[in-house]
Amino acid sequence: MYMQKLAGVVPPIVVPLNGDGTLDEAGFQRQIDHLTAGGVQALFTMGTFGEGSVLPRSTWLQVHKKALAYAQIPVICGAIESSTLRTIEALKQLEDIGAATAVVTTPFFYRAQSEGELVRHFEAICAATSLNVITYNIPVNSGTNIPPAVIRRLVDIPNYAGLKDSSGDVGQMLELIDICRGTGATVLGGDVPTMGTAMLLGADGCVPGPGNYFPQLFVRLWQAAQKREVDEVVRLQLEAIRLSKVGALAPNWVASYKYIGRLMDLHEAHLAAPGQPPAAEVQAEIKRLIEGGFGG
Amino acid sequence: MYMQKLAGVVPPIVVPLNGDGTLDEAGFQRQIDHLTAGGVQALFTMGTFGEGSVLPRSTWLQVHKKALAYAQIPVICGAIESSTLRTIEALKQLEDIGAATAVVTTPFFYRAQSEGELVRHFEAICAATSLNVITYNIPVNSGTNIPPAVIRRLVDIPNYAGLKDSSGDVGQMLELIDICRGTGATVLGGDVPTMGTAMLLGADGCVPGPGNYFPQLFVRLWQAAQKREVDEVVRLQLEAIRLSKVGALAPNWVASYKYIGRLMDLHEAHLAAPGQPPAAEVQAEIKRLIEGGFGG
Amino acid sequence: MYMQKLAGVVPPIVVPLNGDGTLDEAGFQRQIDHLTAGGVQALFTMGTFGEGSVLPRSTWLQVHKKALAYAQIPVICGAIESSTLRTIEALKQLEDIGAATAVVTTPFFYRAQSEGELVRHFEAICAATSLNVITYNIPVNSGTNIPPAVIRRLVDIPNYAGLKDSSGDVGQMLELIDICRGTGATVLGGDVPTMGTAMLLGADGCVPGPGNYFPQLFVRLWQAAQKREVDEVVRLQLEAIRLSKVGALAPNWVASYKYIGRLMDLHEAHLAAPGQPPAAEVQAEIKRLIEGGFGG
Amino acid sequence: MYMQKLAGVVPPIVVPLNGDGTLDEAGFQRQIDHLTAGGVQALFTMGTFGEGSVLPRSTWLQVHKKALAYAQIPVICGAIESSTLRTIEALKQLEDIGAATAVVTTPFFYRAQSEGELVRHFEAICAATSLNVITYNIPVNSGTNIPPAVIRRLVDIPNYAGLKDSSGDVGQMLELIDICRGTGATVLGGDVPTMGTAMLLGADGCVPGPGNYFPQLFVRLWQAAQKREVDEVVRLQLEAIRLSKVGALAPNWVASYKYIGRLMDLHEAHLAAPGQPPAAEVQAEIKRLIEGGFGG
Repeated sequence: MYMQKLAGVVPPIVVPLNGDGTLDEAGFQRQIDHLTAGGVQALFTMGTFGEGSVLPRSTWLQVHKKALAYAQIPVICGAIESSTLRTIEALKQLEDIGAATAVVTTPFFYRAQSEGELVRHFEAICAATSLNVITYNIPVNSGTNIPPAVIRRLVDIPNYAGLKDSSGDVGQMLELIDICRGTGATVLGGDVPTMGTAMLLGADGCVPGPGNYFPQLFVRLWQAAQKREVDEVVRLQLEAIRLSKVGALAPNWVASYKYIGRLMDLHEAHLAAPGQPPAAEVQAEIKRLIEGGFGG
Repeated sequence: MYMQKLAGVVPPIVVPLNGDGTLDEAGFQRQIDHLTAGGVQALFTMGTFGEGSVLPRSTWLQVHKKALAYAQIPVICGAIESSTLRTIEALKQLEDIGAATAVVTTPFFYRAQSEGELVRHFEAICAATSLNVITYNIPVNSGTNIPPAVIRRLVDIPNYAGLKDSSGDVGQMLELIDICRGTGATVLGGDVPTMGTAMLLGADGCVPGPGNYFPQLFVRLWQAAQKREVDEVVRLQLEAIRLSKVGALAPNWVASYKYIGRLMDLHEAHLAAPGQPPAAEVQAEIKRLIEGGFGG
Repeated sequence: MYMQKLAGVVPPIVVPLNGDGTLDEAGFQRQIDHLTAGGVQALFTMGTFGEGSVLPRSTWLQVHKKALAYAQIPVICGAIESSTLRTIEALKQLEDIGAATAVVTTPFFYRAQSEGELVRHFEAICAATSLNVITYNIPVNSGTNIPPAVIRRLVDIPNYAGLKDSSGDVGQMLELIDICRGTGATVLGGDVPTMGTAMLLGADGCVPGPGNYFPQLFVRLWQAAQKREVDEVVRLQLEAIRLSKVGALAPNWVASYKYIGRLMDLHEAHLAAPGQPPAAEVQAEIKRLIEGGFGG
Repeated sequence: MYMQKLAGVVPPIVVPLNGDGTLDEAGFQRQIDHLTAGGVQALFTMGTFGEGSVLPRSTWLQVHKKALAYAQIPVICGAIESSTLRTIEALKQLEDIGAATAVVTTPFFYRAQSEGELVRHFEAICAATSLNVITYNIPVNSGTNIPPAVIRRLVDIPNYAGLKDSSGDVGQMLELIDICRGTGATVLGGDVPTMGTAMLLGADGCVPGPGNYFPQLFVRLWQAAQKREVDEVVRLQLEAIRLSKVGALAPNWVASYKYIGRLMDLHEAHLAAPGQPPAAEVQAEIKRLIEGGFGG
């Protein structure tokens, strides 16, 4: 299958909800417009930031459909499922609605118990679908790191499209860049405090959660990295780190960020159960922290 | 809703598979017969041991149906799902097939981020279903411990039926026994090396994975604990620890145990992808370890 | 060397300090008197509770000397050192002041990196000293668990006197009890929430930090365990768990406990740098929690 | 006290030992000569790589003395001690032998239990000594990360000379670079897989364990980083990662590296107890891995 290598800023789009937990369709369109206007290259739907493992399966499908229909930029579709066979079931649904690319993670809850199991997991997924497949490394959630040796086994698979690595391990990131160089596989940084550095070292792009609200910061970071303007990368990366600290304010970090969306009049701050908006004093602190903006 | 408090040995039943990954119905019946003949009090379907988060959703439903239809003892039905709303979706399916009791875990992948979220998670589940609900604490898989303070908030909910704790933390177990004493909530130990001790201290029963193959060992352990025969509890608990070491032989511990099933002519050793039977040298070691039997 | 097997309650004695950080000798004598009057069987000096890795080496030696000279019950002397050779250096000092038994831990900071290194570490220590040696497993501090397989290699060494296990892993504790049964090696529980259970299962005694202030609670727990009065063990163990929660009130748990000593007029609440007494609101909470006493 | 800011390559010098565990003085001189000839800017004595927490205290002092007397480049002296007061005791000894700069870590075994304790720990150390003080962050050994907020509290202390960070957390490294910019505090990377990246982003130097044997690789890496030759940094950093994998071959990584020293005829492969040279098959693998050299 032909595919163009993905590059640039690919925010894991937040999913605005109504008070009853259903998808706020108008808010979701505003969010897509906000990101497109901000200059991002693609969207990642139903990632962790998009409450991809939290919302009901029906909402999961609805969000993908809506994004594929509405967005004027590429959409990569998250299929965060606990096992090989459940991932394959989800990819069938994505095929049916016309998706081109899926993002899949390691087995979780009952985790892969050897490197061989990890390889067989991803091989089986790629073999079972016509979609392009991006592997998603997020050990803090899945409990399993995808080591470079596993990626080395995947890069020659025709529909293997690359990886998102959110481990924050820059040494590993460099090995991944080296392994994917000259292949069709894209390398995307998913850890905010290190994604600018990753792009400076050769990563193709980034998946910034806080990019939902300040996309230009990450677009500039990507551009500075491509031009190898080290000082500018350092300056913007520090600003991204400062922004990422907003997430730590509420116990539930998606709640912290969604409250920014409300302050910016993009959408309400509702979360899927059992999440709740930040407490009043956290709201005030978030307001104060974002006052000056980011990315200027 | 009226419910009788669950007590005794409740193995997390293994799910025999055919070579193509489908349910081996005859093997599953033999497994149920083996456990019933072994004297266990109930069955736990689609737990970790039953590849409950690994098998396709269609198989998940099929296993529950089959167990509910065939078993002559109570069945508690696992609904291991990554979030509040996904758990509720699964419980609706269990209601439809006539289940009486469901076993649910904490949110995982995107985990509950405060004790309040944990409480709201379980409260929302109990409120959304007519089933009896058992909470399942297995931090090694879910990444989240359910502290006693959360259980204290649940015991007065009418359809809260108790807990399975697989943390191995005996201090916590004692607090849970104390909290549930005099309520309708059952306390089940899920950690093999400490479940006999837990029952000696007052836990109502146990959920022993290796009980799939040696149910009498655990039935005797339960009986000794009830009679407070400390020496006998120690002796049988040590035997259970010895048996539990079989699980550590293959990288994938379900694979190790399923191979015992094959040696006992109960079922084949197939696993859901990407699991594989143990390597030949591990098979030999397993054979050697179980030769003398357990529970005598 | 002849030695009698240690059994019973062996508190890790707290070290009262003057405001300038020097040993409060009168307070230390009062502390020894308090424990002796409370009926404990022996004292453990310079353990974690006694700030054994925190105080200057000169104070370390002074405390051991004082305890050996003043106490009318056996004293086991902590030598918490980061390596094999540094432990041996410390044991030489203990030999010089007439100690009979030393308590040693695993290498820490640069940890033992295999089971073989752990065995060689303890073997080298035992071979280098005329003292009886007790091994001290406290993975939360040292970063290394001492598995039962290592202890199995030590029990036949003439001056190996047994172990203190503070891991809280009751399954492991049972294996240790089994391994040491019939040897001269004592098994002491060091984890407050499980030490009563450990003694019920066959451990010889316990090393309770909070026993510094409420020794009778642990003496009764030990007696109930010896008589296998399961209900009484459960009741007293729950009380010990309740007491152990005092430690979690201040960020520095030794600070929490030392403040109890001040409330009981045993000694001041000073800690070695950089520790500080609990904040005023924590002091009030501690006062409230201990008001009813423990062990009644 | 006046001090020049430290910059460049500062290997944590390995300590060659005789078969009886004593310092191999001739080998140590050869090691110093090898590093000086390799173009490094300074030496770090008695760090983790130098078995600084493992060797007897007498050897600890002897190594510092020897290095201070023999080396023609600056020496920073490790004082890895478990507490504030024990660190201060060690610094007194370093003052007596004419050291200029000491490297100190967080409290370990009984760790600092709040950010405030960490700050007070380092403040007390700086106040108690006339030496320049470098803080050493190595959470994998000490169990405690030193967060940027702590360093911010230290940079204005006159004899605070900077930091070595071995956490491998590049986001944190960037914050540290930002905090120390314009102060007299040096920032040294201590994690081999990310130290080139750290220097590219603005760190002043690095402390490479494997630099004991291939100093030129790290000197070139430092130079490329200073010139901001991104491609060359990437190339040499990848080579350093490849070299760092040698450390993982034996269970004890110092053993792996010391065997390189033997292959290069710099010194024997003896370790302090309970360390042992790598097994024969590991020796062969190490030989194979280093055949082509590094840094070319």
